Amino acid sequence: MIKTKAYAAQTARSPLAPYEVLRREPGPDDVQIDILFCGVCHSDLHTARNEWKNTLYPTVPGHEIVGRVVAVGKDVKNFSVGDFAGVGCMVDSCGHCPSCAEGEEQYCDNGFTGTYNGPVFGGENTYGGYSQSVVVKESFVLKIQHDEKDLASVAPLLCAGITTYSPLRHWGAGPGKKVGIVGLGGLGHMGVRLAHAMGAHVVLFTTSPGKVEDGKRLGADEVCISRDDAQMASHANSFDFILNTVAASHNLDAFLNLLKRDGTMTLVGAPAEPHPSPEVFNLIFKRRQLAGSLIGGIRETQEMLDFCAQHGIGSDIEMIPMDYINTAYERMLKSDVKYRFVIDMATLK
Amino acid sequence: MIKTKAYAAQTARSPLAPYEVLRREPGPDDVQIDILFCGVCHSDLHTARNEWKNTLYPTVPGHEIVGRVVAVGKDVKNFSVGDFAGVGCMVDSCGHCPSCAEGEEQYCDNGFTGTYNGPVFGGENTYGGYSQSVVVKESFVLKIQHDEKDLASVAPLLCAGITTYSPLRHWGAGPGKKVGIVGLGGLGHMGVRLAHAMGAHVVLFTTSPGKVEDGKRLGADEVCISRDDAQMASHANSFDFILNTVAASHNLDAFLNLLKRDGTMTLVGAPAEPHPSPEVFNLIFKRRQLAGSLIGGIRETQEMLDFCAQHGIGSDIEMIPMDYINTAYERMLKSDVKYRFVIDMATLK
Repeated sequence: MIKTKAYAAQTARSPLAPYEVLRREPGPDDVQIDILFCGVCHSDLHTARNEWKNTLYPTVPGHEIVGRVVAVGKDVKNFSVGDFAGVGCMVDSCGHCPSCAEGEEQYCDNGFTGTYNGPVFGGENTYGGYSQSVVVKESFVLKIQHDEKDLASVAPLLCAGITTYSPLRHWGAGPGKKVGIVGLGGLGHMGVRLAHAMGAHVVLFTTSPGKVEDGKRLGADEVCISRDDAQMASHANSFDFILNTVAASHNLDAFLNLLKRDGTMTLVGAPAEPHPSPEVFNLIFKRRQLAGSLIGGIRETQEMLDFCAQHGIGSDIEMIPMDYINTAYERMLKSDVKYRFVIDMATLK
Repeated sequence: MIKTKAYAAQTARSPLAPYEVLRREPGPDDVQIDILFCGVCHSDLHTARNEWKNTLYPTVPGHEIVGRVVAVGKDVKNFSVGDFAGVGCMVDSCGHCPSCAEGEEQYCDNGFTGTYNGPVFGGENTYGGYSQSVVVKESFVLKIQHDEKDLASVAPLLCAGITTYSPLRHWGAGPGKKVGIVGLGGLGHMGVRLAHAMGAHVVLFTTSPGKVEDGKRLGADEVCISRDDAQMASHANSFDFILNTVAASHNLDAFLNLLKRDGTMTLVGAPAEPHPSPEVFNLIFKRRQLAGSLIGGIRETQEMLDFCAQHGIGSDIEMIPMDYINTAYERMLKSDVKYRFVIDMATLK
């Protein structure tokens, strides 16, 4: 086993603090990665504080991992020592259910293995990217084509990037399509960038007039202040697709009404308190759809990384040292970050 | 103008009673139809009693109309005197918006003209099928291929039939697909018959153990008692599509959980009290969709009628005289009908 420095929460109420985990020696299919950068996702905080009531302690969060390959098993084909590599939200899945067979491992019927807080249905816990290194089977390791100087901004693509890329692709964002992105945070700012790069006409919805300029800088063609009824009304029945990244409970009808016939609004955040129940007439009268989407499969995550490298897309980040994580969590709760914290893992050494 | 005997409600609280309306003389594009049968839809009751707060009085309900053509305008091409003909929920639409251009007049951006309680956005009121005759422009008149002896059972196809046929087609019900129908009433019994005729594996969901045999007679391969948690659990993650015909407020999650990945549940009834808000995780974890659907376009209504004629499909009806309508409404409120009242319009003479 490989002793690995990490940061862990020992209980729902304890701050994250230094801890040591054991990684397995790389097997024939495994890739061992020295972690360079790890993004900080809101799920990390939910898990550290047991807000989803399923945390196994101690827990080492982190599923936006970028690093350098330092060892490979004898059967590994696509990675060599020295390569840059990424790991996202999953490190395993059953491999034989219909979703796995179709490369949609995130919907594995038997439950994928999370990069941290791993097998929910039995087995051992897994430890995430707030650590020096990780050992992952090759089929769950991603190739990174970005320049080395951009690696920190690549880390959030592994969760925030794929969580927005997958639904944008699935519901056909592209030229000739009017696409709304609700919320300008870690997910929303990626959604704006990706939808713009796909060629869609992008409208950012935000409650904050102060975010208009930043929204346009990121690629929004228009920014609509969602508290302004007149601005909202001007977009009625006009959207092909709306990606809603806001996890806080809010009025979905305000956005459902903006979809044209057969349009879809997809939720990628789950609120702690339920949204007010959507008005059924708003679905019936334009055959609209309300949907959800969960990250993306490994094949699509690689496609997203390649797309981002080709288009020069990364996340807007604020780099932090490992021992800043508890402060970062507090600032994240106040949306005081543009738009993703990324831990410089060299600070853990 | 043509004096026409009818039954109307004069206020939200008055019973329906004899009344006389004026129909226009047929113009060049018009078809004049002597009404033989008119189905009784729950929307009739909602409108008569102003439960949707938009009723124009006096109101003559009825939008499941079957009759015989007695006059045609000079430009009418597809109907001749003596033909059987049908009229459904619409008698006009703008004709030039994208939905109209695509033959989806029910989603007309400018609001279709209802067969009764007509132009909501201005213009005159329209009077429906609880009457001796009706004059409708040809493009909103349907051809009936069924045998004359079956005409009464055809009437409910014009609303209950198309309301279930359209979403079943839109979401791909057919061989190899597992389709759920929630509720066995006027809509649900048509949904079971149609989905079965389309070749799907059909599961009827009902709260009433007493409806099991009837569900199977109508074409259900399985009947699941939705209050039985074990029966419900046995269908988890297995449906391609669920058509939910229940208008009363109920727990949508119980059915959303039965959809497989990328499955859709479509609502065709709107509750007076909102459904409990669906759990967002149930949408996210299988990329499920919650949708709505409204009747169907004229082209698809004709397709549905032809499909039903080909497969020998009609509605299960209880024939009533016109003066029974107020009693029929009370029985409808208690679901005391298998499965649709149809008025024999000869009783109005």
